[in-house]
Amino acid sequence: MNKVNLLDKFALVDALWTPKIAGTVNDCHVKLARIKGEFVWHHHEDEDELFLVVKGRMTIRTRDGDVTLEEGEFCVVPRGTEHQPVAEEEAWNLLIEPASTLNTGNVSNEFTVERLETI
Amino acid sequence: MNKVNLLDKFALVDALWTPKIAGTVNDCHVKLARIKGEFVWHHHEDEDELFLVVKGRMTIRTRDGDVTLEEGEFCVVPRGTEHQPVAEEEAWNLLIEPASTLNTGNVSNEFTVERLETI
Repeated sequence: MNKVNLLDKFALVDALWTPKIAGTVNDCHVKLARIKGEFVWHHHEDEDELFLVVKGRMTIRTRDGDVTLEEGEFCVVPRGTEHQPVAEEEAWNLLIEPASTLNTGNVSNEFTVERLETI
Repeated sequence: MNKVNLLDKFALVDALWTPKIAGTVNDCHVKLARIKGEFVWHHHEDEDELFLVVKGRMTIRTRDGDVTLEEGEFCVVPRGTEHQPVAEEEAWNLLIEPASTLNTGNVSNEFTVERLETI
């Protein structure tokens, strides 16, 4: 049973918008992502996605309005909800989502990462 | 889609060892717990349990050794692993586990909380 230090693990996340897997709990992955700028609009058909901000600030845009998260805040994007994560300055977030979740959901583009690295 | 501020929600957790539900993601709950002292030894037959320390320090004792978690550190107790959470001083932790998980697992005693409040 190993412990995970979030800051140590974030130091291993070397690319923006490319989450790495820091843990597995039941059928979910704990993923760490460094983000800056605008991600692609997408949705996940069958998976809710939890975003917890560990450093900085991010906004999750939806067609019904935006939610801005500061450090120590989280929200859950329900399955089927089209959303666009954005961050004006670099932000670090922790995601909880099923191991099956593709980062760009229903979209396949330059942001898509098919196989995430475990750190 | 509401955001959750962890510190605001911890302010609503009024009793030690009595987690409250701060969110739901897929079939899991995000629970917040204030702990101090020694919990009961127990295991969860079919559920992994993630502990993330938000404030303070806690130790998870297992029959194979202890893991001490500081703020910003997490570990996952695999299903079937007998464990005892302890904290010398009050600590705050965030748990991710299936909605079905009972706090005392296979044990029923004075720590058992059958229905957790959602905050």
